[in-house]
Amino acid sequence: MTEAPAPRRRGRPRDADLEDRVFDAVLEVYSETSWRGFTLDAVGRRARVGRAALYRRWSSKDDLLVQALEARSPLPVPIDTGALRSDLVELARQLLRGYRTTPGLVSLRVALDARANPELLARLIHTLNRSRVLAARTIVHRAVERGELPADTSATLLLEMVTGTVLSHALFALATPDQNVDDDYAELVVDATIRALRRPES
Amino acid sequence: MTEAPAPRRRGRPRDADLEDRVFDAVLEVYSETSWRGFTLDAVGRRARVGRAALYRRWSSKDDLLVQALEARSPLPVPIDTGALRSDLVELARQLLRGYRTTPGLVSLRVALDARANPELLARLIHTLNRSRVLAARTIVHRAVERGELPADTSATLLLEMVTGTVLSHALFALATPDQNVDDDYAELVVDATIRALRRPES
Repeated sequence: MTEAPAPRRRGRPRDADLEDRVFDAVLEVYSETSWRGFTLDAVGRRARVGRAALYRRWSSKDDLLVQALEARSPLPVPIDTGALRSDLVELARQLLRGYRTTPGLVSLRVALDARANPELLARLIHTLNRSRVLAARTIVHRAVERGELPADTSATLLLEMVTGTVLSHALFALATPDQNVDDDYAELVVDATIRALRRPES
Repeated sequence: MTEAPAPRRRGRPRDADLEDRVFDAVLEVYSETSWRGFTLDAVGRRARVGRAALYRRWSSKDDLLVQALEARSPLPVPIDTGALRSDLVELARQLLRGYRTTPGLVSLRVALDARANPELLARLIHTLNRSRVLAARTIVHRAVERGELPADTSATLLLEMVTGTVLSHALFALATPDQNVDDDYAELVVDATIRALRRPES
C-alpha cells in the first residue's frame, strides 16, 4: 500500500456537506432500485440538491455511483499484524463486516447490474476491487518472505476464497448477524484457507 | 401468507405454455428492476397474460418469484461420480455455470433484496439453497465413508467455500467468461477446498 488514506472531504465545508448528503442518497436510492431506477434526478430529489448543483459536480451516473461507493465502502485498510493468520483474520472480518452494511450490499448490487454494463464493470473492478487485490497481494508477499506460504501462492485465489466464503455466508446463512459469531467464522474461514494454500502433500 | 398453495396445473399444454411465458417474464422483469419494480402487473404485461389468469394461478409476488426461480435455476442435480474430487468438480462447475446465467444472477439479486424482507429470505433459503445443502451433505457423507475426509467435516463450510469462491470469481473477475477456463478454475477451487478440509497437520 503506497497511498495514505485520502482525506475524503475535499474543499469547502459546504461542498463536503453536499457531498455527504448526495452519497447517502446514492446508497439509499440504489439499494431500493437497480441501475435502471438510479438516476441523477432521483438522487437530487432524495438529497434535496438542485439539478444544477448536481450536474455541475458529477457528469454521469457512473461517476456519481463509483465515487459514492469509493467514499463509503468499508474497504480493507492496510493490514500488517506481523503474521499471516492474524492478517487474514483481520481481512476476513473487515470483508464480512462490509457485507453486513448498506454500502457493501449496494456494491454487490452494482456488481450484478454491471454484468450487463461492461464499462461500469471495468470501473468497479478497477476501483472497488483494486484495494482488496492490493491488500491480498501484500499479505501474501510478506507471508512468502516469512516462509509461511509457498512462493507461488496465488493472491487472487486466496482473495476469492476469503471474499467468496464470507460473501456466501453473509448472503445465504439465515441466522441473524452477530458480531462475535461473525468474528469466529472469519477465523474458521482463514484456517481453512491457509490449509488450502499450503503445498499439496501429494 | 395464509392462502393454500394454488393447485399446480401441469398437465394441459396450454397452461404449461402460459407458465413458461410467465416464468421467462419474471426473470426478465426482475433482472431489470429490483423487488420494488417487480409486480404481478409488470410480469403480466411482459408475458402478455391477463391479470385474471395471473392472479388465478399465483397469489403473491413471493409465490411467483420463488416458483420461477425453482423452475429455472440451474440447481445441482444429484452428483455421484464415485470419488470426492470429481463430485466436487462437478458441483463447482454446475454452480459456476449457474452464476453465468440469468436465473443465477436473478437469484443473487433476490438474495440481496431479501436482506430487507425476512419472509422472502426464509423462503429463498428453504427452497433454492436447500438443494445445494443436500448435495453438499451427500457428497461429504460418501467421502467420509470412503475415508477421503475426516468424519467431522463441515458440509456447510465446504459448500460456502465452493459456492463463495466461484461466486466471487463470477462477480469480480473481469475476463469474458469461457467455458473451458471456468471448468479449469472449478478444479483449482476444488483442489484448494479439499486441502482446506483435510485435518490440519498442527
